[in-house]
Amino acid sequence: MTKALGQHMLIDYFDCDSLSLRDTKVLEAAFKAAILEVGGTIVTSIFHTFSPYGISGIVVISESHVALHTWPEKNIASVDIFSCSSKLDLDQLAVLIKKILKSGYHNQRLFERGIHFSNCA
Amino acid sequence: MTKALGQHMLIDYFDCDSLSLRDTKVLEAAFKAAILEVGGTIVTSIFHTFSPYGISGIVVISESHVALHTWPEKNIASVDIFSCSSKLDLDQLAVLIKKILKSGYHNQRLFERGIHFSNCA
Repeated sequence: MTKALGQHMLIDYFDCDSLSLRDTKVLEAAFKAAILEVGGTIVTSIFHTFSPYGISGIVVISESHVALHTWPEKNIASVDIFSCSSKLDLDQLAVLIKKILKSGYHNQRLFERGIHFSNCA
Repeated sequence: MTKALGQHMLIDYFDCDSLSLRDTKVLEAAFKAAILEVGGTIVTSIFHTFSPYGISGIVVISESHVALHTWPEKNIASVDIFSCSSKLDLDQLAVLIKKILKSGYHNQRLFERGIHFSNCA
């Protein structure tokens, strides 16, 4: 197996503060600050507000991306962090995002990207 | 376990055509066309070209997002498709993207999002 090109962390946050999942501008600023705090380099971002509620936010970083989707009515947010740099601390970023979303509990799964498996088609 | 809020497919494409991984405008147009073909609804998109090469592209869709990262020097591209709609055919989209990238082989992994696990922290 060859060396992975990146790490991809999928995180689902539960028991979030519903209001925190609705404020697009606050979320975008907080996500960018958290990414900078863990050593990420921001390229650009899009945060879109759906009607009547729900946000999809993407921050493109030099290391790859951070994506957010919120369901305020369920107090749930799904985040994924893709990084091709070992310098970016994914675990630390997941903790910072948990605080931003005021989440009670979460799960996270980490996968290697860009590697061959025996089931390639 | 509660019902998943979405499906998240992680796909790594290998043996891609290097030139096809470098043309940002062509890739953006082709990705959008493929998403429309499988029933997705495009909200907005960002495709960024890195120097000297490499592209990060994100299409925000009503159903969630499609993200692309390319490594032309390795003939590899990593894609992830997040959809909260059962109407969007992830497998079909993965096949269409394989054609766009002119990939020889790929692997794909599918995960449920927004569900509780016993290891929630």
